[in-house]
Amino acid sequence: MTVDDLRARRPGGRTRLVTERLRAAALEIVAESGIDGLQYEELASRAQVGRATVYRRWPNRDDLFRDVLTHFAETTVQIENTGDIVRDLTTFLQSFAEASITPAGRAVLQILLRRTDGNDGLHHVGVELLDRRTGELQRRLDRATEAGQLPPAEAPFVNMMLIGPVQWFVLRRERPFLPEDAQAIVELVVAGLWRDHVD
Amino acid sequence: MTVDDLRARRPGGRTRLVTERLRAAALEIVAESGIDGLQYEELASRAQVGRATVYRRWPNRDDLFRDVLTHFAETTVQIENTGDIVRDLTTFLQSFAEASITPAGRAVLQILLRRTDGNDGLHHVGVELLDRRTGELQRRLDRATEAGQLPPAEAPFVNMMLIGPVQWFVLRRERPFLPEDAQAIVELVVAGLWRDHVD
Repeated sequence: MTVDDLRARRPGGRTRLVTERLRAAALEIVAESGIDGLQYEELASRAQVGRATVYRRWPNRDDLFRDVLTHFAETTVQIENTGDIVRDLTTFLQSFAEASITPAGRAVLQILLRRTDGNDGLHHVGVELLDRRTGELQRRLDRATEAGQLPPAEAPFVNMMLIGPVQWFVLRRERPFLPEDAQAIVELVVAGLWRDHVD
Repeated sequence: MTVDDLRARRPGGRTRLVTERLRAAALEIVAESGIDGLQYEELASRAQVGRATVYRRWPNRDDLFRDVLTHFAETTVQIENTGDIVRDLTTFLQSFAEASITPAGRAVLQILLRRTDGNDGLHHVGVELLDRRTGELQRRLDRATEAGQLPPAEAPFVNMMLIGPVQWFVLRRERPFLPEDAQAIVELVVAGLWRDHVD
């Protein structure tokens, strides 16, 4: 174990603070200049560290983005279980909308939008992030089904039907995404799922 | 009327061909390097014209993007009226999905994703494009309502509920968007709209 490793394990240690500063600076640059605008030189200068410090943490930009985005995904967008599925999905959409308009949320979209040559590890990271919560959503939907609040439902499809409209809404930036917007989306989707079941 | 104007009115004339070549080159560059990667110098060189030719047509990049994207919107994504609303909306989603994966479709998304300082004419162009078909969609929905195929429905909300999931799907690029994907989305939304009406 190196000294750096030890430092990293001590919450609030210098290494950890430097890492957080670098992550924040990386997201700022991507939000301003896009993925391809990120240069290690500028990143180091914004975070006030040497360039070697950046290269030691993340030998290439894919490593950097993977780390930054994974960290982002772990700290945002929770699916609650209050027992009321409409309420919990509404909260879920609101927290997704809030996360989407942060620099990190926009960076994820930038990654997904990049043109690829068929072998793009970074696009895969973006898709992984989108799918990260599918398992959690499936468990929440299953509980709602057990409680008689939903017919059996597939999380990937439900996720697309809920998150797609929110993403569409926030991309427009015409006005803030409100609780009633989230609720209208959730109610339509839940009603649609029931109808499928009845037919 | 100038000579250029006359040429522009003659279909297949040199001026028109140059304009089309420039539009295509602009979309290619945006797809490869993003909006901010577009320089008039490179654009002129790709389209094999002088830089002055580009500046004469579009004094600044906002003019260029407005023209290119408006032209794109006019030539794609129709809403048909066969008398069957589920079928027509399904066709609509398929043609939207096809348009989304073209360089022009990705350029629209790039524009919407750009960070703005509150006064961004280009973002407005992107939103205008998204809204361009709302009037047409409202008329198609109204006819379906008259035919008893739908309860009264607001086009902006229906558009978000239909197009949002498609956009989400195509951003992932995991597999092609199929007719059955379009149909599953349309059926859920139509069923959800009915349920709202019954309640």
